[in-house]
Amino acid sequence: MDLAITPADVLAAAERLEGAVHRTPVLTSRTLDGLAGGRVHVKAECFQRGGSFKLRGAFSKVASLPPGTGVVAYSSGNHAQAVAIAARDLGSAAVIVMPEDAPTAKLDATRGYGAEVITYDRRTQSREALGERLAAERGLTLVRPYDDPLVMAGQGTVALELLDDVDDLDVLVVPVGGGGLISGCATIAAARRAGIRVVGVEPAGADDTRRSLARGERVALSEPRSIADGLLASSPGTLTFPIIRRLVGEVVSVTDAQILDAMRFLGDRMKVVAEPSGATALAAVLAGAVDVAGTRVGVVLSGGNVGIARLGALLADR
Amino acid sequence: MDLAITPADVLAAAERLEGAVHRTPVLTSRTLDGLAGGRVHVKAECFQRGGSFKLRGAFSKVASLPPGTGVVAYSSGNHAQAVAIAARDLGSAAVIVMPEDAPTAKLDATRGYGAEVITYDRRTQSREALGERLAAERGLTLVRPYDDPLVMAGQGTVALELLDDVDDLDVLVVPVGGGGLISGCATIAAARRAGIRVVGVEPAGADDTRRSLARGERVALSEPRSIADGLLASSPGTLTFPIIRRLVGEVVSVTDAQILDAMRFLGDRMKVVAEPSGATALAAVLAGAVDVAGTRVGVVLSGGNVGIARLGALLADR
Repeated sequence: MDLAITPADVLAAAERLEGAVHRTPVLTSRTLDGLAGGRVHVKAECFQRGGSFKLRGAFSKVASLPPGTGVVAYSSGNHAQAVAIAARDLGSAAVIVMPEDAPTAKLDATRGYGAEVITYDRRTQSREALGERLAAERGLTLVRPYDDPLVMAGQGTVALELLDDVDDLDVLVVPVGGGGLISGCATIAAARRAGIRVVGVEPAGADDTRRSLARGERVALSEPRSIADGLLASSPGTLTFPIIRRLVGEVVSVTDAQILDAMRFLGDRMKVVAEPSGATALAAVLAGAVDVAGTRVGVVLSGGNVGIARLGALLADR
Repeated sequence: MDLAITPADVLAAAERLEGAVHRTPVLTSRTLDGLAGGRVHVKAECFQRGGSFKLRGAFSKVASLPPGTGVVAYSSGNHAQAVAIAARDLGSAAVIVMPEDAPTAKLDATRGYGAEVITYDRRTQSREALGERLAAERGLTLVRPYDDPLVMAGQGTVALELLDDVDDLDVLVVPVGGGGLISGCATIAAARRAGIRVVGVEPAGADDTRRSLARGERVALSEPRSIADGLLASSPGTLTFPIIRRLVGEVVSVTDAQILDAMRFLGDRMKVVAEPSGATALAAVLAGAVDVAGTRVGVVLSGGNVGIARLGALLADR
């Protein structure tokens, strides 16, 4: 079966993103290298505009539409802000569908980027149906969080930059929710660096992709659970899964406690604020769930939208 | 009067530091630019080895000594760890004089870098006298935290890198304790960028340099107080003050509350862990204590050694 994107799509996305996204820094720590037993390079997407890698995919998509096309997205998290920012940058109208009980700070932040927010009741309404209806009624284009080739290609620019900045990577470790980030990253990594191992990491309570790979077909979890709220997809995407099957060597899982340990390490030792989803890939390295001994490893720190107050509270409980 | 260091000294320090210190990233934020009214470039020395800029000065000094020379320093903070790291890198023995009631984590961290820690009783012993005696008895060289030309030149590499990475800076904002960082930075900035405004920032409770400039001579505070524990020098140095008088246009002060606001902004919006001293320069920009409207500004974020747990507690109280 043909895969949804090619390496050329990632390069084309990188051109669209030029000047619109930050080239985020790559952080290193000798203490981390000592703990991991390899040379670890952390691609810090927490410093991306909007606080996560999500702007790459959203901007790649919105910039590919005819100028002025309005967009709609449903998300209570980083994708919402990313679509709002991309639309504002490009002069497009954005409607974001968010649960009515979302934190006020998130609703305000999304409105602050100029988006119209439409709330729904989680218990009685389907956000997908609402999104589709808005798209049809208002002539808006739906920007999916991961299962879209233009979004996937945009996310792949994370690995493109990392491979440009760090020579001779042996392993690339990437968090997995719906699979948009890892499918884009694996596509360009396999093309740029023959033989590189691409490893996905999921929370143990949301390991739909690991299970799907084991089963050989997409498996849906009834109720994914983790503090890593950005990785709670119930199944891999229809477009992302074939790429993961072909190009990702293994998907491992980490516990919430291991994720919190990684957040603490990142804050105390590396001075970086990582949200739970953002710390998940590093958690696998620190916990030994991925064997990186003697290798040169790239690790994607995918986002930092947690808030210092919540970060302190999460870590104080332990 | 001749100044203690020249721009050539900073360039020579940069050569000594090659490969030993991180070239730290420069962070930007459109939200920050909007709040400041100018283009702000944050030089993130929290990502330096040892968690602060202090390694630059310590390494510059220790690398200038005959190989194998043992060193001694007195510090309960970032300078202690910096001297320990520099000595270990260079194969020298280090003795660090620390108060016996220093946090166990700091004592352990310093020992972890291979230094011998000698504790003293704050109430009955003088750390300066103890340091001098150890230096004499054991043939060790004292590494002062700021009032040493090799240390000052090393700290100046912070500004050297920032001026290399960001074109056309109009203003450079730097925290001021004993003045080692700002004297090194001002020396190279004045040479590299004619007309640049160099602004120092002190905590309001430790504004010895501001008072000294107003008086035209070094003033000593009897009891400097601030949460910015790295900036509690009671007076500017004998070598740093003449440079500050000549090259620093103004020194402003910020309250502890403004410092906490800046720490929160850095954590929540920029995803960076800053210790109170480290956030002091940005606090002045955010609070409007430095007028940066319409300018291109460099701001030194000097360190991040606060610990996530303490950071959460400091900000939760507000």
